[in-house]
Amino acid sequence: MGTVRNARVNQGGPKCAGIVGLGLIGGSFARGYAQAGVRVLAWDPDDDVMTAASMGTVAGELNDETLGECDIIVLACYPKGCIEWLEEHAQALADATDTEAIMGPVVIDTVGVKGIVCERAFELAREHGFYFVGAHPMAGTQFSGYAHSRADLFQGAPLVLVPPAVDDALKLELLGQVREMVRPLGFGKFSVTTAAEHDRVIAFTSQLAHVVSNAYVKSPTAQVHHGFSAGSYRDLTRVAHLNPQMWSELMIDDADALAFEIDHLIDALGAYSHALKDRDQRYLENLLAEGDRIKRALDDESAH
Amino acid sequence: MGTVRNARVNQGGPKCAGIVGLGLIGGSFARGYAQAGVRVLAWDPDDDVMTAASMGTVAGELNDETLGECDIIVLACYPKGCIEWLEEHAQALADATDTEAIMGPVVIDTVGVKGIVCERAFELAREHGFYFVGAHPMAGTQFSGYAHSRADLFQGAPLVLVPPAVDDALKLELLGQVREMVRPLGFGKFSVTTAAEHDRVIAFTSQLAHVVSNAYVKSPTAQVHHGFSAGSYRDLTRVAHLNPQMWSELMIDDADALAFEIDHLIDALGAYSHALKDRDQRYLENLLAEGDRIKRALDDESAH
Repeated sequence: MGTVRNARVNQGGPKCAGIVGLGLIGGSFARGYAQAGVRVLAWDPDDDVMTAASMGTVAGELNDETLGECDIIVLACYPKGCIEWLEEHAQALADATDTEAIMGPVVIDTVGVKGIVCERAFELAREHGFYFVGAHPMAGTQFSGYAHSRADLFQGAPLVLVPPAVDDALKLELLGQVREMVRPLGFGKFSVTTAAEHDRVIAFTSQLAHVVSNAYVKSPTAQVHHGFSAGSYRDLTRVAHLNPQMWSELMIDDADALAFEIDHLIDALGAYSHALKDRDQRYLENLLAEGDRIKRALDDESAH
Repeated sequence: MGTVRNARVNQGGPKCAGIVGLGLIGGSFARGYAQAGVRVLAWDPDDDVMTAASMGTVAGELNDETLGECDIIVLACYPKGCIEWLEEHAQALADATDTEAIMGPVVIDTVGVKGIVCERAFELAREHGFYFVGAHPMAGTQFSGYAHSRADLFQGAPLVLVPPAVDDALKLELLGQVREMVRPLGFGKFSVTTAAEHDRVIAFTSQLAHVVSNAYVKSPTAQVHHGFSAGSYRDLTRVAHLNPQMWSELMIDDADALAFEIDHLIDALGAYSHALKDRDQRYLENLLAEGDRIKRALDDESAH
């Protein structure tokens, strides 16, 4: 167990940050760091994106030769892309890391499912000797790509962290390092959990929301509703517009938990349908009152 | 076919408005009219509400003796309450109406289903000789009651109108009257439709949204999601909190259309669940791409 490097604590953030993948999330990390005066190195397979990012944001390319300059490396690509990058750069990361002194870049990912990425990343980190902490910034928009990225995307947003299964002292050290290294982004709240628990909950709060929203607009009635849409329709269908390639990969990686949530919702919806077909207003009122009660209790809890 | 009364056209609204029921909607009509300098008469079964509303908003009681002073009467109670009030006051409304000159109060309702209210109201209006136009202001909040009503609740909101089956000239006259009489409320857009078409569409845009939101929070996972909720969860569950008595009555009155929408959504959701259980990422991606395409097309349409 080493001590936190003084240089880092004093400056309240990294001197240099590496970003892998300059989409909405990676681009926003890059812009946020650059705006805070942090030197940013980055890699993206799209040359046009690299060129665009080089104007005022990215100072140079992140590769085997330069990754040792980074205090933090943020993997901001799809699950498979994150794992591939780690496999290709595991040796260089190990070379840049001194596990005796707990010195070297801390690698985090930003993927919306944690099981599949963390399992392999923890394994690589352990085998080669570098530091990895799973991370899921709870922010985003219905738009994707570097063009939509913003320096303030993470301001006030929650960051969920998944530490490796190491001894408690090192775990606390790594979590503290990551919090310190992401300080310039302005996250509002940090949670620490396991990959399995994260994926179970995220299937409900995020993936199910996207599936329901996406399925909602498939009614034939959607084609004739002009002038009739109140706020409830707009809210329910906001995330129907999504990136199908990214979401299908995330959802397949969390398939059991998400299928459980969809099936649970299907059962719950079936009860309302039965009440309506039976013209059973008392039963319908009870079903609605139950949901209302649960929602109010949840809102009360999160207010405290 | 008479002519529009000059007094009304010149002042751009009613001189006197009657409100039946001072909940969120009726209270907001009352406040909006009062703020625009319109004299407001009202009736509510709750004496405390009447007392509260008498302070600066409501000038007097709406009853058989006073309803003839009104240029517009707004029924703002539950479906059954609207019909009961109309049945009790049908004769007084007829006495205050001159169908030769098309003079007298225009009655509108504000109920979220139009079939059940319009059918009986049109019948009463025809039999007794007074004017009724179905209306659904597409505004509201998750809160109810006079205390939450606001003079600006309808600013920019859509108003859907359902005219009676009369000759086209009288129909246009009545629709014009209502538009003129609600001008002080600042509605943003007017649509004209039939009760059946309204109820079919509203089952999808509003009632289904409330059912889905209300059912969503019933997952056991809802109890453990603290710190993990992004905007998609908040949007999907916003209207889970609702008035069960009011909504169960509205939904039972539109039972067939709403049951159709719920069953359609259940089928659509089932496809995603199957894709997940089969680990069929290509099928899942196709399902998501289909919803994304529909959503984008709908957004493009409503932007024009």
